[in-house]
Amino acid sequence: MLPVISISREFGSGGHSIASKVAEELGVPFYDSEIVNRVARESGYAKDVIERKGEDSTGDAWWFDISSPSAQYFQSPQDEIFLIQQKVILECAGKGPCVIVGRCSDYILKEAEIRNLSVLIHADMEHRIARILNRYGEIQNVDVKKRILKKDKQRRTYYKYYTDQTWGDYPNYDLSLDSGKLGEDLCVKTIVETAKVFPY
Amino acid sequence: MLPVISISREFGSGGHSIASKVAEELGVPFYDSEIVNRVARESGYAKDVIERKGEDSTGDAWWFDISSPSAQYFQSPQDEIFLIQQKVILECAGKGPCVIVGRCSDYILKEAEIRNLSVLIHADMEHRIARILNRYGEIQNVDVKKRILKKDKQRRTYYKYYTDQTWGDYPNYDLSLDSGKLGEDLCVKTIVETAKVFPY
Repeated sequence: MLPVISISREFGSGGHSIASKVAEELGVPFYDSEIVNRVARESGYAKDVIERKGEDSTGDAWWFDISSPSAQYFQSPQDEIFLIQQKVILECAGKGPCVIVGRCSDYILKEAEIRNLSVLIHADMEHRIARILNRYGEIQNVDVKKRILKKDKQRRTYYKYYTDQTWGDYPNYDLSLDSGKLGEDLCVKTIVETAKVFPY
Repeated sequence: MLPVISISREFGSGGHSIASKVAEELGVPFYDSEIVNRVARESGYAKDVIERKGEDSTGDAWWFDISSPSAQYFQSPQDEIFLIQQKVILECAGKGPCVIVGRCSDYILKEAEIRNLSVLIHADMEHRIARILNRYGEIQNVDVKKRILKKDKQRRTYYKYYTDQTWGDYPNYDLSLDSGKLGEDLCVKTIVETAKVFPY
């Protein structure tokens, strides 16, 4: 049987697009906006808050923020969102083979001892900048490299806080691919072929 | 055309055996003992010294050791071996597609701008211990885990000294594989298939 596939990715590495194509080729669900929708529904927070606080340490002093719409005033909104998101991820994974992107899913699935192919997609700065410019075009007064470095830092801080592990450390992944060097298609093919015969 | 393939590996991960099979399947040279032989010939050091000092920081005070058989008294033996080994690796790679294991070859090939598929093979401690016991059997009074941790440390120190990079950092590799989770055969297949279509 196919495993649950968690895909961690650097911002601008094309990991999201790769994950979506892997799910399509394998004919399994791709959980991304559905996780955001469900966490929004269960927590009461708006979707854009879930997107912002569900993967990145956003730098605002969320640990002092007690404007929680639920009654759990002793939990920060970020902690609250993390716990609901964790529950939603485990529920999705419990339904059978699927692809889940980011959100500490590699860690959450491993801790829950769910059979999981853990994948990392990364690329060098040059490829990431080119990809973002290609996708979003030039944005006035935005230094794309600075934006990428900030996003990296936010995701690493978030990951460290909730997993006590370092994002990107090779023991956390069964398969790591440089999408800048290998190209998107070869990354999709390698993950699909590995998932099909994943022996673990 | 096939790229030069450099395979970095954790001690006990089966990376050496995987590298040898990849070379066999692709029908390209596997440079391992030949590098040791050539460095021994060119440097005047014995093969066991090359093996010991050509990849590991062995912890002996080699930087004070001036017993060099060559006349380069102002270079440590380890530096001398590194430089000759670097030259030999580049000569091997210059002959065409091949597989080279360890010895900072990922860094050396990248610095020389040689088209190179850089691979990392790793495994969790449990699999590494099992593999070493299976290969060498129990050795009286040897704590295998301690031996693995020491070897890791020696290789990391050596790598850091000569490359100023951290061994295992994901940006150094195009493809990283957990041989404990994927198994040796799937690692071989993935590297072979990737090398065949490596677009970079």
